[in-house]
Amino acid sequence: MSLDPVLACIDADLPQATDRLLELLRIPSISTDPAYKPDCDRAADWLVKDLQSIGFTASKRPTPGHPMVVAHTGGEGPHLMFYGHYDVQPVDPLELWDRDPFDPQIEDTAKGKVIRGRGSSDDKGQLMTFVEACRAWKEVHGTLPGNISIFFEGEEESGSPSLIPFMKENAAELTADIALICDTGLYGDSTPAIITQLRGLLGEELTITGPSKDLHSGMYGGLAMNPARVLTSIIASLHDADGRITIPDFYDGVPELSNELAAAWDDLKFDEKAFLGEVGLSDPAGEKGRRPLEMLWSRPTCEVNGIWSGYTGEGFKTVLPSEAHAKISFRLVGQQDPLKIRENFRKLVQDMLPPDCTVAFKDHGAGPAGQMATTDPAFDQARQALSDEWPNAAAYVGCGGSIPIAGYFKDILGMDAMLIGFGKDDDQIHSPNEKYDLESFHKGTRSWARILAALTS
Amino acid sequence: MSLDPVLACIDADLPQATDRLLELLRIPSISTDPAYKPDCDRAADWLVKDLQSIGFTASKRPTPGHPMVVAHTGGEGPHLMFYGHYDVQPVDPLELWDRDPFDPQIEDTAKGKVIRGRGSSDDKGQLMTFVEACRAWKEVHGTLPGNISIFFEGEEESGSPSLIPFMKENAAELTADIALICDTGLYGDSTPAIITQLRGLLGEELTITGPSKDLHSGMYGGLAMNPARVLTSIIASLHDADGRITIPDFYDGVPELSNELAAAWDDLKFDEKAFLGEVGLSDPAGEKGRRPLEMLWSRPTCEVNGIWSGYTGEGFKTVLPSEAHAKISFRLVGQQDPLKIRENFRKLVQDMLPPDCTVAFKDHGAGPAGQMATTDPAFDQARQALSDEWPNAAAYVGCGGSIPIAGYFKDILGMDAMLIGFGKDDDQIHSPNEKYDLESFHKGTRSWARILAALTS
Repeated sequence: MSLDPVLACIDADLPQATDRLLELLRIPSISTDPAYKPDCDRAADWLVKDLQSIGFTASKRPTPGHPMVVAHTGGEGPHLMFYGHYDVQPVDPLELWDRDPFDPQIEDTAKGKVIRGRGSSDDKGQLMTFVEACRAWKEVHGTLPGNISIFFEGEEESGSPSLIPFMKENAAELTADIALICDTGLYGDSTPAIITQLRGLLGEELTITGPSKDLHSGMYGGLAMNPARVLTSIIASLHDADGRITIPDFYDGVPELSNELAAAWDDLKFDEKAFLGEVGLSDPAGEKGRRPLEMLWSRPTCEVNGIWSGYTGEGFKTVLPSEAHAKISFRLVGQQDPLKIRENFRKLVQDMLPPDCTVAFKDHGAGPAGQMATTDPAFDQARQALSDEWPNAAAYVGCGGSIPIAGYFKDILGMDAMLIGFGKDDDQIHSPNEKYDLESFHKGTRSWARILAALTS
Repeated sequence: MSLDPVLACIDADLPQATDRLLELLRIPSISTDPAYKPDCDRAADWLVKDLQSIGFTASKRPTPGHPMVVAHTGGEGPHLMFYGHYDVQPVDPLELWDRDPFDPQIEDTAKGKVIRGRGSSDDKGQLMTFVEACRAWKEVHGTLPGNISIFFEGEEESGSPSLIPFMKENAAELTADIALICDTGLYGDSTPAIITQLRGLLGEELTITGPSKDLHSGMYGGLAMNPARVLTSIIASLHDADGRITIPDFYDGVPELSNELAAAWDDLKFDEKAFLGEVGLSDPAGEKGRRPLEMLWSRPTCEVNGIWSGYTGEGFKTVLPSEAHAKISFRLVGQQDPLKIRENFRKLVQDMLPPDCTVAFKDHGAGPAGQMATTDPAFDQARQALSDEWPNAAAYVGCGGSIPIAGYFKDILGMDAMLIGFGKDDDQIHSPNEKYDLESFHKGTRSWARILAALTS
């Protein structure tokens, strides 16, 4: 089956493909907030219906959380499993959006047309590049090449609590020759990239309780323990003066960068001044003595993602708060063991608690770092297909984010994964005014058409 | 004019007096939140009308913030100026209230009847004890003893921004022989108290900004500065391991406790285990090597009253926040200079800022500690009047809270102040379920009737 008419079909169908994406973006499928549960369900239904319309046997599969969408074409040839997620991040602070995050639109910008709205880049726009590539193959040839399966999750932005049980229960159905994951970006603006290593993620929430109720700081201040002060002391102690994380045994399993990888990454000529300059910063703030790309791709981190205690409204309230809360996440690399780190983190917090304070922890997910098997010939085939579509040749790169699904595919299903995506650094994912370049959507769709051809020929 | 019929009138009028207080408590005069501005205005109007009804020349006086209420009887004899505040604290967390904070009611409890609602103890219930005492004098004798003025503020819970200018502009009108301030408590449950020293208060809010927008912690984590981490480091550095505050020159002007005062306070037999036990604590958490009452009354403090950054909702969001905020207050003693401490605090924060972070400060008021002139014979007269009303003799005590008005009366108007109040430790002021014992209200009113007699005879 020839590729060129498929690419031509994609070009001709772009306006309709964009309309379909806008329709999906209008569904506010925020997985982390229970208020949006019906919307997550609605997004799953929409995808099932769309996949059925292009010949997939597709179904919505219940979980204790948000549903999965699973779809198959069946057929001969290599079996490819495509993964994406239909859930999106919360939208606060809402006042920083220039438009309603769930009333998406095509906007003209100095850098070209963009699709603006929550989820446009992470990950609805990306997953639709694959769906649109399939639609074009089906339209042109009446069938898809190879044997294609699709697996969409609805809990990626909230720690994927249902993912592992679902994969284990449906292991046979979900196992293919290789997985394709579209939740990453280009390297720079026009260099396609295949991720070969990903950081893992450990999410923790802690609540420190001191007094049994909020107190007046004049009446009790000086005598009563302030849990906000305790929390800040604990968080401040998590890094030393060199930016290293102080949790015992934290660096167990963290590899030094190989000379080969160091050279390859140096070839990428990463411009940290430009990268940081985009967001108003200028100085790399990680561990002393590390390359900027190392800090992002191959060194572990500990970040405060949220902290709150006491009075946070307008004006002032001299309260001595009863509780102090934080959400803290760790990016993990190499062979770091998330569960061991969770245990050591919790012990460190317990050990630092003064008398009269207690702590409660909430688990927000744990996934190890991922390392891809680039010796599989599919990697070089996909790399060539991407190089054919884009101005620059495709690169093998690392990723600072955490896409634990790649590790799960390997560990639970014994399946390697290729991470290919078309997001750009300025897509503002997880931030107000998220966008996806129309070029990313269009050339992304064309890229998948080429990759399908390359992997199934 | 004899006292006994006035006390009898107060006893007989208690149900009506309580109804009047409930009416005032229904007005949600939260001064710190601009949304309640009309309610603050309404509370001032209510007081003006009530004072006029008992013969005061009363008026609402505009300020750039909430209005003042000023009232006078004129007349012969000692000129007494009574101060209270009609504004109240915010009510969050609202879900911890057992009833609507602005739908007050008399409740039967194991310890007797209480008036439950925001402001019942701080300070509407307290200020009405004086108004009701005046009403009874007027009712019985057709006039009040001496020359009485009243001064009610509406910004006490929000740093009193208009107070000093107003006092300066109206100095002649507001100056009397002595000020009476009702915004404090009994010592224990049945020992009336006159405060002879008060801590000062300095309120600061800081916002640390790192990246120009919220970032994805996977994409940027390790390379970009996290302002929440910076903020926690700064706050954690404000105390040393012995609980002392580390701001340069912070302890300048902090006196050691005199042997005489130490002995008097020891006589009060303060039970810190019981005091802390009431709020679920057991261990004094202040400076090492200090008496518990010292920690509360005569040592300075630094407390986090509020902190917030990043994602604080349900679930998890791997955001690297752009901003981190805190509200911090200092209780001051002796001759500590609030403005010097503000300057040194801000410099310490600036000095600790890493590259790429900026800080903005907001001033939430500053007032020095207060020391009363107990040699004025009015102190012993009032002490005797209180001792006549209550089961135990009245005590001279310190106060951990900050009632800067006492210092302003002295500094701006050259007038000494007596701080007498009837709140109890379990009144939950500034907290959910605030209450004022009906006994406090009733015996408080009787106490003022006695004090008016004692000071004007």
